Amino acid sequence: MTDRPATPLLDRVKSPADLKGFSDAELRQVADELRAETIFSVSQTGGHFGAGLGVVELTVAIHSVFDTPQDRLIWDVSHQCYPHKILTGRRERMGTIRQKDGLSGFTKRSESPYDPFGAAHSSTSISAAMGFAVARDLGGAPEPALGDAIAVIGDGALTGGMAFEAMNHAGHEKRRLFVVLNDNDMSIAPPVGAMSSYLSRLYAGEPFQEFKAAAKGAVKLLPPPFQEGARRAKEMLKGMTVGGTLFEELGFSYVGPIDGHDMGQLLQVLRTVHDRATGPVLIHAITKKGKGYGPAEGSNDGGHATAKFDLATGKQHKAASNAPSYTSVFGKTLTKLAEIDDKVVAVTAAMPGGTGLDLVAERFPNRVFDVGIAEQHGVTFAAGLAAGGMKPYAAIYSTFLQRGYDQVVHDVAIQRLPVRFMVDRAGLVGADGATHAGSFDIAYLSNLPGFTVMAPANEAELINMVATAHEINDGPSAVRYPRGAGVGCDLPETPTPLEIGKGRIVREGAKVAILSLGTRLEQSLKAAEMLEAKGLNPTVADARFAKPLDAEMIMGLARDHEVLITIEEGAIGGFGSHVAQLLAENGAFDAGLKFRSMFLPDTFIDQSSPEDMYRTAGLMAEDIVEKVLAALSIANIGSAKRA
Amino acid sequence: MTDRPATPLLDRVKSPADLKGFSDAELRQVADELRAETIFSVSQTGGHFGAGLGVVELTVAIHSVFDTPQDRLIWDVSHQCYPHKILTGRRERMGTIRQKDGLSGFTKRSESPYDPFGAAHSSTSISAAMGFAVARDLGGAPEPALGDAIAVIGDGALTGGMAFEAMNHAGHEKRRLFVVLNDNDMSIAPPVGAMSSYLSRLYAGEPFQEFKAAAKGAVKLLPPPFQEGARRAKEMLKGMTVGGTLFEELGFSYVGPIDGHDMGQLLQVLRTVHDRATGPVLIHAITKKGKGYGPAEGSNDGGHATAKFDLATGKQHKAASNAPSYTSVFGKTLTKLAEIDDKVVAVTAAMPGGTGLDLVAERFPNRVFDVGIAEQHGVTFAAGLAAGGMKPYAAIYSTFLQRGYDQVVHDVAIQRLPVRFMVDRAGLVGADGATHAGSFDIAYLSNLPGFTVMAPANEAELINMVATAHEINDGPSAVRYPRGAGVGCDLPETPTPLEIGKGRIVREGAKVAILSLGTRLEQSLKAAEMLEAKGLNPTVADARFAKPLDAEMIMGLARDHEVLITIEEGAIGGFGSHVAQLLAENGAFDAGLKFRSMFLPDTFIDQSSPEDMYRTAGLMAEDIVEKVLAALSIANIGSAKRA
Repeated sequence: MTDRPATPLLDRVKSPADLKGFSDAELRQVADELRAETIFSVSQTGGHFGAGLGVVELTVAIHSVFDTPQDRLIWDVSHQCYPHKILTGRRERMGTIRQKDGLSGFTKRSESPYDPFGAAHSSTSISAAMGFAVARDLGGAPEPALGDAIAVIGDGALTGGMAFEAMNHAGHEKRRLFVVLNDNDMSIAPPVGAMSSYLSRLYAGEPFQEFKAAAKGAVKLLPPPFQEGARRAKEMLKGMTVGGTLFEELGFSYVGPIDGHDMGQLLQVLRTVHDRATGPVLIHAITKKGKGYGPAEGSNDGGHATAKFDLATGKQHKAASNAPSYTSVFGKTLTKLAEIDDKVVAVTAAMPGGTGLDLVAERFPNRVFDVGIAEQHGVTFAAGLAAGGMKPYAAIYSTFLQRGYDQVVHDVAIQRLPVRFMVDRAGLVGADGATHAGSFDIAYLSNLPGFTVMAPANEAELINMVATAHEINDGPSAVRYPRGAGVGCDLPETPTPLEIGKGRIVREGAKVAILSLGTRLEQSLKAAEMLEAKGLNPTVADARFAKPLDAEMIMGLARDHEVLITIEEGAIGGFGSHVAQLLAENGAFDAGLKFRSMFLPDTFIDQSSPEDMYRTAGLMAEDIVEKVLAALSIANIGSAKRA
Repeated sequence: MTDRPATPLLDRVKSPADLKGFSDAELRQVADELRAETIFSVSQTGGHFGAGLGVVELTVAIHSVFDTPQDRLIWDVSHQCYPHKILTGRRERMGTIRQKDGLSGFTKRSESPYDPFGAAHSSTSISAAMGFAVARDLGGAPEPALGDAIAVIGDGALTGGMAFEAMNHAGHEKRRLFVVLNDNDMSIAPPVGAMSSYLSRLYAGEPFQEFKAAAKGAVKLLPPPFQEGARRAKEMLKGMTVGGTLFEELGFSYVGPIDGHDMGQLLQVLRTVHDRATGPVLIHAITKKGKGYGPAEGSNDGGHATAKFDLATGKQHKAASNAPSYTSVFGKTLTKLAEIDDKVVAVTAAMPGGTGLDLVAERFPNRVFDVGIAEQHGVTFAAGLAAGGMKPYAAIYSTFLQRGYDQVVHDVAIQRLPVRFMVDRAGLVGADGATHAGSFDIAYLSNLPGFTVMAPANEAELINMVATAHEINDGPSAVRYPRGAGVGCDLPETPTPLEIGKGRIVREGAKVAILSLGTRLEQSLKAAEMLEAKGLNPTVADARFAKPLDAEMIMGLARDHEVLITIEEGAIGGFGSHVAQLLAENGAFDAGLKFRSMFLPDTFIDQSSPEDMYRTAGLMAEDIVEKVLAALSIANIGSAKRA
């Protein structure tokens, strides 16, 4: 069952151009082979899975009807791009997907001309497609020359306000543009929101009447004689309702719903719109996430992402970890707090499982709110909850909180509302690569007046920080913590709030001080041991708070040591910069303190294991050792020495 | 004509509760008096004007039907809150609006219990209202106790994707919630987007048939006997279309359109929905921006904002400035570049006038794109244009670019696409206060890999930086510049690109170096003169680039001076932090350099004149002098001295 499937037709497809000679029946077979190949490929590597299986027919149909790469095909989020990669010259490299130096798990401009616009965050595809469509009309001249722009977007991604903004603009501009709505009634979690119910209503009743429903919407695209009858039917409705679907209201021609796994229907519809469209067209295709692979179809999330697995049983080969994940520790802690305080509520943007809020929702389903892929709304909704006397926890990945940045500033920070941000997936995240790195939150939260910003060194600290945030009622707070397993330390029975703005000395030493924020503490302690072997005896401190700083502890470290090194899992502008400012204002530099700051480098780091990425970033114990030794030696060159 | 109008009924309204005893006819008169009072008040102070005049009747009607402040009334953007402030106990202080220590030009929680949620950026009101509605249902217990939640949102703000996200959630939650769509067919600029056309169609034909149209939508809210007929009418449509308006598709009961200046209609509709609604209701009111004041009604922007003016003529009392504004200098420069390069295009989010792109659009209407209040889409649209071979300039105020932050990171920076961000209104902006301050852009742009970040010291520098951005084709760039007039310097005939990452020494001195980024250069030079009077002779340098830094120049300054001060018009984490890192890595601190960094303080600064705000911020020449002298004197206390 783990043999590579036979794929005689697919083997002939070296690029999408090779599809042009195929009959419809052959295209159908290519799709079947592509599905088998995708299942086999992901069983060997792990990766995002269900989404790709849902768009196998769409992928083949679009590539056969349109002329990629001149026509720009943009996959929203691009979890679903695996079959696309197989078709576009990357089949042999699929075994490297999401691995160091391998293919990205997402579309990526630098990887292939068939990936004209990379994606990983949701709801960007229509905006990008609009850019290509306008560039084409204005004579933009990239390589290859510009043809059509096609965005493929899921129903989940459509709940992101940005997609609505783009449709509003596209409907206004009226340029030729294609949006394929890949409606599998699922993003990662089951769908939420009124839009989801609306889409269901669109195909309730008699969904797939072989092109009849599609033709109704495509009336503007049909030749004149056909239009007349349809026009008369529409006249009847006039004055009684503003006719058409939501998409037509926004200026799109709506075609659908069609069966996204029926190759005949797909080809017919795509050929029609390709030949006749003059303005924006939305093609509504109904698909099934995980289609064609039983274990995925039957799962709650449509087989969203997976580790390597056994083809027959679907059983995943997952490495067992001894320590609980930060995510689950957070979920359990918040459940405890929710038990003792009925004002505790939580908000997630379509990530109940990923954030651990599913654990809270099991106990308190009415106090956990999934707002859809809608971070902007989620943040301000939480601000409203806080203004209404509740104690909201907004659990959002670091990289996705960027989507709600203005709301954090304008609605939360300026109003000093006590929203607690639980910033998961902070720092480097591994296989998802640069687009999912949580690099900037320390910087962009810590310079907001009135914010308290914490980072736990381990999962026990996380428990106490979640409790600390619970106590902060006069302004916003944030706890940022990494993806994956904790360090395996003992956990406190009862979550206990920390003193605000107080760090802790973890290891008492002399001459050299290493001041860590977050989970680099482990590497800092390791570095201290390595330095001990070289005759030094470093002090190691855990800052706990990026804001407010423990000024007393930090100035003490500066006074009592010759070298002070800060380290954090974030970009410049964060913890190290705040410490530098504290030191400068208090004259520590005037006195010749050898200060160094270690943080994420000024580059986007490609996918690998988190550890390897931190090695690339230069934030491992060896790097700390090197930094300390260099500081001591440069100091000897400097013109001044401490007394 | 400048006398205060007679307002006998309004004089009896000390708080909205006083409206409860009034008859409908009296409420109508209160509205008339409130309009006269608003016009008089703004003629004395200046401020946002047209929006308030458009909602006078709405303001009176809502406050008379609902029970504020228990019922939470949230004004979106809140430009339109002047009549609301007059009604809610702030009439006597209207003369202080937008001035130092006076009333805010926006709603503000700290100002009044009648302002339950502050606003200034667009499209937040429905999210906040949802928060209040959920808090009410879950037993949130703020003061005063929670009643209904009512959001009033303009048709312009509705194009912001966040409003759509909120409606999607509200329609799903189905809680009692009121959204009043204040449809004046105008945000600040004339409206763009398909939503605007859609709203126009909703009231095309026979708009205001005294409650008939309203009743049609309100069918679910009417008592059962009335519902039956309406239900039968709807049955006729079944199977032919998915019925109802766009708002009904999203789960709202839609009521309207109604005449937002017809007090009888407003009261009738609001009382009906107040008494009967169980879920979310959208009330669509058609209003006229600037209503009741001829000069405003007749203007292009409905009298959006104004200086003090003469009541009879509408003529504004504006102080003449000798120097052109940064905004107009940018607009003229980009027009020149567009003349010589047909790949130059520009994007604005509903601010063609505010950004100076109106000047470009006059010459090249097809190359300037107003995407509506939609910064997320605008940024990624620009990224798509760049990927399509164009040279896009995205002109967005610093504070509003926060709305597109994730798109800047994910779509622009990670893909190294050459989008040029023209970041207007950077730094402190004056009367608009903290919500409009452009405090964070240096920090949040400069830590993005591959970005070039510039800030001109004057309008001549701006011209050359706009040209520099034109030359940067291998990654994103940004130019950030302040609101208001330049310094009045000579302007270059031809925009000339600067050398990337090179600053300039403006004044050669010794011992003390002041390194300025942006328009603090003027104060830096003034400080140098003041210090000269004290026997010092400071060097003053203009960094020009926050990224990449001019490492050679900066290390030279460090080497040749005892004190080095950076100054910038932004928050911590930006230019000063990058300079500190450069100095640390190169051992300048080890050698005892007296380094200080001056930036915006860790507080949100309330409205005043920009100069006064910079005084509060401690970024004036005197502050620089003080910082220099303190650094020199602390150095004497320190334990180490330079050789």
